[in-house]
Formats: sequence, structure tokens, C-alpha cells
Amino acid sequence: MSIRFISQKIAQQIDEELMSSSGAFSLDQLMELAGLACAQAVAKTYPVNTHPRVLVCCGPGNQGGDGLVAARHLHHFRYKPTIYLPKPGSKDIYQRLLKQCENLEIPVLKSIEELEKGVKETDVILDAIFGFSFHPPLRRPFDRILALLGSSSAPILSIDIPSGWDVERGRQKLETEPDENGKVDVVETFVPDALISLTVPKKGVREFKGRHWLGGRFVPDALAKKLELNLPEYGGVDQVVELSAKL
Amino acid sequence: MSIRFISQKIAQQIDEELMSSSGAFSLDQLMELAGLACAQAVAKTYPVNTHPRVLVCCGPGNQGGDGLVAARHLHHFRYKPTIYLPKPGSKDIYQRLLKQCENLEIPVLKSIEELEKGVKETDVILDAIFGFSFHPPLRRPFDRILALLGSSSAPILSIDIPSGWDVERGRQKLETEPDENGKVDVVETFVPDALISLTVPKKGVREFKGRHWLGGRFVPDALAKKLELNLPEYGGVDQVVELSAKL
Repeated sequence: MSIRFISQKIAQQIDEELMSSSGAFSLDQLMELAGLACAQAVAKTYPVNTHPRVLVCCGPGNQGGDGLVAARHLHHFRYKPTIYLPKPGSKDIYQRLLKQCENLEIPVLKSIEELEKGVKETDVILDAIFGFSFHPPLRRPFDRILALLGSSSAPILSIDIPSGWDVERGRQKLETEPDENGKVDVVETFVPDALISLTVPKKGVREFKGRHWLGGRFVPDALAKKLELNLPEYGGVDQVVELSAKL
Repeated sequence: MSIRFISQKIAQQIDEELMSSSGAFSLDQLMELAGLACAQAVAKTYPVNTHPRVLVCCGPGNQGGDGLVAARHLHHFRYKPTIYLPKPGSKDIYQRLLKQCENLEIPVLKSIEELEKGVKETDVILDAIFGFSFHPPLRRPFDRILALLGSSSAPILSIDIPSGWDVERGRQKLETEPDENGKVDVVETFVPDALISLTVPKKGVREFKGRHWLGGRFVPDALAKKLELNLPEYGGVDQVVELSAKL
């Protein structure tokens, strides 16, 4: 039985069940484990001796939180992370995760000009901008941000769904919101070099050909069985398992 | 420079600083990482193929919470954990961590009679009963519980400080609280086979000769420097590093 690729609705259902009173997980716990898995996927794909500099691009939602956790663990794994944070999330947990990174003196870039420099001075990009809740149109200035990341010569590892892709249909024509003159632009999204799916891969990455990891070694067996996820077995104490070798 | 062995006061200070508004960690985060490190220490000391059954003995405080997190990760690492929980903690987080284990159908023993059977039917014991805040006299029935664990033929891995030891002076004569007739007993505490210290080893385990791990790969560099902890380097993406090889 091969692993299930799930819809946006099922992805939301899994998160809701885990954090319901019967699932009993806190967002702090799940984000910590998810971000740790992302950091491990970076370490397994792009070893610290060849790719010490990691630019972690964090969106304003929960996926940005995963990115902040990953940046912290990457620091402890002896990488040199830099965070790009165009729009910090307003949730308390987001602010705390950011503070934890600042306490480690991880640099935080905030402007597009700094990002432009940042993408030239990194060995790998961790894309934590949009997660499975993303839907078009693309807000500005994320059109410029996605274009900048796509123009980088450094490899990109995306979390869950490459930023700007449709969570179910994959890479699609993506339109921006109208600018002040009513003009809509069409953005060419990038294809990352590697990917980590969290809990279960989403339908939109079914055709992804790069290195593909799965993280989220916390899904209860009963939930996996109920939703017929057919999760692969993780090895040893790893928080990630490679899917590309198995698909 | 060798690693510092810290006092109870410094251990409390580290936890307080991590969870202060400037440290910004939540208890959920720290307990998740600590418990994961404990599960990794078990896996590295007692591999799942030779030691599949783990009896996780959880006290009522934060160390019991670490034990519950470890039991969950051990389940995902394909061990067969059983939890012994003589006195569940009252904190909300403790109840949530217990629920997460129950959702994985991890058996929970509650009576001393069940523990008596449990210690005979396990391959390793994870001792998460008392942490660095413990102070005598020993409450009943923990005298019987410690004696039962000490009588087991299965190896014991203790978290932070073997249960009943003095956090600074190590293994000492330990007196119980008076029973209903005013009688005080002296308890012989056990010497575990292995140990995992969390964040920094405590003074009381300085002479410990068994396999000794360190977990807590989240201490900010600035805090480690301020307190002159001289922490060793962790390898790869490991959440534990072996101290016994370095001491």
C-alpha cells in the first residue's frame, strides 16, 4: 500500500484532531516537532560542511512558525541560519519563537533589498512562506519575494507545499491581487530542489521529482488507520523518512 | 575545559531563565525536547531489538512529564512502553501528555501490585520519578516503589538524578516520612545502569560510573557562557551526546 496524498480538507482535519481535546496536543508541541523535522531534512539533504548558510524564509502563518523552530535547531546543528521575515505573525507563539532565535543572535532580514542580498549569500534556502492553507490571489510583495527565491542559484527545500503552489493541483498559473492601477500579474512559481511534507504529503506534490522527506513522527496509529494514510516506517530515532526512495 | 556540574539552585535558574519572558520558551516546548532526548538515550543505550519493553516510571512533577513525552516517542520508535504512574501530576500539561499516551494505547499501571508484575516483565526501566527539586523525607509509598525498582533485574536509566539521590551530594542515606506509628525507615536507593542529565549534569552525579548522556540541545550560547557550563558539542542532528566517553 503506498502512502496517501491528501486534500487540503484532510490536512486541516489532521491538525484539528491532533489539537482537539481528545488529541490533546498543543500547538507548541506540534510546531516544535515539525520544525525539528524540517531542520533534520535540511541536514540530511544539505550537510553543514558543504551548505553552512541557510536562509530561512518565514511567512506570517503556522508554516512561518515551523521555519523559526527549524532556524533555531539549525543553529544548534552548527549551521549559520539567517531568517527572512517579511511579515511576522501576530500570534503569541510566533513572537516567542522569534525571540528564541534573536537570543541566539540569528540575523533577521526584513526588507526585500536585504532579501536580494541574502539569496546571493546563502548555500540553501528553506522555504517556509506559505503552507497548505494558502490560496490565491498572491498578495504583494510576495510576487517579488517568490521571484527572488526562484532566481537564486542556491537550492531550495520547501516545507509541505512549495510556496504559491496549489495544495491540491500543484504548480499552477498564479495571479496576484490587483495593484493600485487594477493590474493583475501572473507569477511563475519556482520548483524547489527538495521538499519535506509534514504528517502526510499533499495532493499538489504528487508529481514532485526532487528529494522528498516526510516529517511528523507523532501521528497516532488510530488516526493514520482511520484516514488510511499508509504512512511509511521511520528508522531509528529519525524525525524524517525519505519518500523519494519509496515512491 | 570540562563540563560544569551544577547545584540545585543553578538548575532552577536555568529553567527559570529559559521560561522567562526574555528566554521565551514554553514548558510544552522544553518538555517535548527533554522527553525526546530521554527516548533517544534509551534507544542508544538499549536498542529496540534487544530491549523492546520499557517500563517508564513517572513521578508527579515535571520529570514525570518528561517521562510521558519519552514514552510517546519510544512508542513511535517501535518500543513497547508501559507507564507506571503512582500519582499523576495535577498540571494541565501533565494531563494532556498522559492523554497523548493513552491515545497510543500505551498501558498505564497504577498500583504497586501492578508495578511488581511490571518490573518482572520489562527489558529496561526509565526512571522519571524524582527530578532535581526532590528533597527528603521520602513520602510513602515511594519507599516501596524505589525498593521494587532497585530489585529489578532489568537495567535502569535515570533521568537527571537517580530517584531519591540528593541532587548535590549524590547517593545518601534516605529517610522516609514517619508512618502512622511515628516510625521512620531508611531506604537504600538504587544505582542506575545509565543516566541522562538534562541541560547540564548536577553535582550529585559527578561520581556516576555508568553510561551517561546529556540532553537539552536548546541551551542558548549566551546562557551557557554566562554560567560557564562548558557544554560538549552534540553531533549531527542528535538530541543527546555521551558524557561518559568524555569525562
